[in-house]
Amino acid sequence: MKRMVSMVVLLFLVSVPVVVDAKIATKVVEYRHGDVVLEGYLAYPQFMKGRRPGVLVVHEWMGLNDYTKKRAEQLAQLGYVAFAVDMYGKGVRAKDAKEAGALAGKYKGDRPLMRSRALAGLEALKGQPRVDPSRIAAIGYCFGGTTVLELARSGAEVAGVVSFHGGLDAPIPAEPGRVKAKVLVLHGGDDPLVPPDQVNGFEDEMRKAGVDWQLVAYGGAVHSFTNPQSGNDPSKGVAYDARADRRSWRAMRDFFEEIF
Amino acid sequence: MKRMVSMVVLLFLVSVPVVVDAKIATKVVEYRHGDVVLEGYLAYPQFMKGRRPGVLVVHEWMGLNDYTKKRAEQLAQLGYVAFAVDMYGKGVRAKDAKEAGALAGKYKGDRPLMRSRALAGLEALKGQPRVDPSRIAAIGYCFGGTTVLELARSGAEVAGVVSFHGGLDAPIPAEPGRVKAKVLVLHGGDDPLVPPDQVNGFEDEMRKAGVDWQLVAYGGAVHSFTNPQSGNDPSKGVAYDARADRRSWRAMRDFFEEIF
Repeated sequence: MKRMVSMVVLLFLVSVPVVVDAKIATKVVEYRHGDVVLEGYLAYPQFMKGRRPGVLVVHEWMGLNDYTKKRAEQLAQLGYVAFAVDMYGKGVRAKDAKEAGALAGKYKGDRPLMRSRALAGLEALKGQPRVDPSRIAAIGYCFGGTTVLELARSGAEVAGVVSFHGGLDAPIPAEPGRVKAKVLVLHGGDDPLVPPDQVNGFEDEMRKAGVDWQLVAYGGAVHSFTNPQSGNDPSKGVAYDARADRRSWRAMRDFFEEIF
Repeated sequence: MKRMVSMVVLLFLVSVPVVVDAKIATKVVEYRHGDVVLEGYLAYPQFMKGRRPGVLVVHEWMGLNDYTKKRAEQLAQLGYVAFAVDMYGKGVRAKDAKEAGALAGKYKGDRPLMRSRALAGLEALKGQPRVDPSRIAAIGYCFGGTTVLELARSGAEVAGVVSFHGGLDAPIPAEPGRVKAKVLVLHGGDDPLVPPDQVNGFEDEMRKAGVDWQLVAYGGAVHSFTNPQSGNDPSKGVAYDARADRRSWRAMRDFFEEIF
């Protein structure tokens, strides 16, 4: 009997949706962008009623991994339906920094592709039955931060986008009046990969395009400051910063309270 | 009998402390800086128990006025003991912009005086019986923002300072290791009086001095964005911005929750 109960529990755990904790559930979601098959990760409050705001989560340069999934789960714990998108394709994940650079570089070097790939994820999220499609935001980390800013530049119907230590360069700058999303940039004040010139250029771009933008610089924080796997040596230019992680998450929550 | 009750109420209202609403009380507080007599304004929760965190509030260039007092009252409504200090001297208030420029200029041009005058206010706050002197912050608007940053540079024992659209120049830069306060700068992203060069210079100063700093830039907001009396034409470089006002107040509240 005891063995039978265990088997039932096991079967339940490997089924879809998976119950992650008492409050949230998760599900792998396959979707497409043209002929490319993509595999995202949905997390939502288990006992929700009606439709909830949806939050797109865009991964770092390594591709959709456990870190990104954890962020989606944290958003579900806040009551949102979170969808961690897959920018690279089903099963396409970087094994190391070299591969990550090549994968991310492909999209960074082709912003129209980056935008349309992100839009495919947005449509997949909007199509989820638990989601209120009129209340959508997008957040992203590093490469994903750049991606959600491109999503905003595309004129996508999202209430807001939040970039965590994302690159701020704009090969195709935002057109005046086109951006519908409110924009919140959470930036490491000492991020060597996003230097002051790039920050100033970004602010100028937002200004000219008439965007509702905000930028928070966290002193002492360098690149990838929200990811505990980034080490703890800021002198390397990439490091976790618990303080900036906590503050930036708080800023995102305030932003969501405002836009939803 | 009715008249007598009214008289008692009236006497109560003009006495010290004054009951502003059901929740808070206020009091005029005279204090000194050397031979100079100063007159500040204290606001605190009416039915508080024990000692509460204290918040210094430093006025704009016009001097301690109704706007500053209202901010102190709002802080009291949040549960803090707020002390709107007087930087200029009892009865010394600007009648117009010319006088304000002269008054503010005196302190802006003499940072040691600005620091010691602010420190006198800090001591007056710490001496209040309702205040927990180990939990003190300082906020300031425009001229007052500059002032609380100078207070931080002085090495004063405050947990944090918040500048709302304050000037960020530093004739006497912060010394490495001296600043004990965490620093939060809430800045109008389009403030012509605090241009990008000054912002970059400030960030660099904070960086070199090893300060725990954060800077939030609010797109579209110009100088004096928190003050409803600043008009509503951003093209003048000075204007109220309800959105940035609300967001910056939220940021301050988060900051207080962290430091207290």
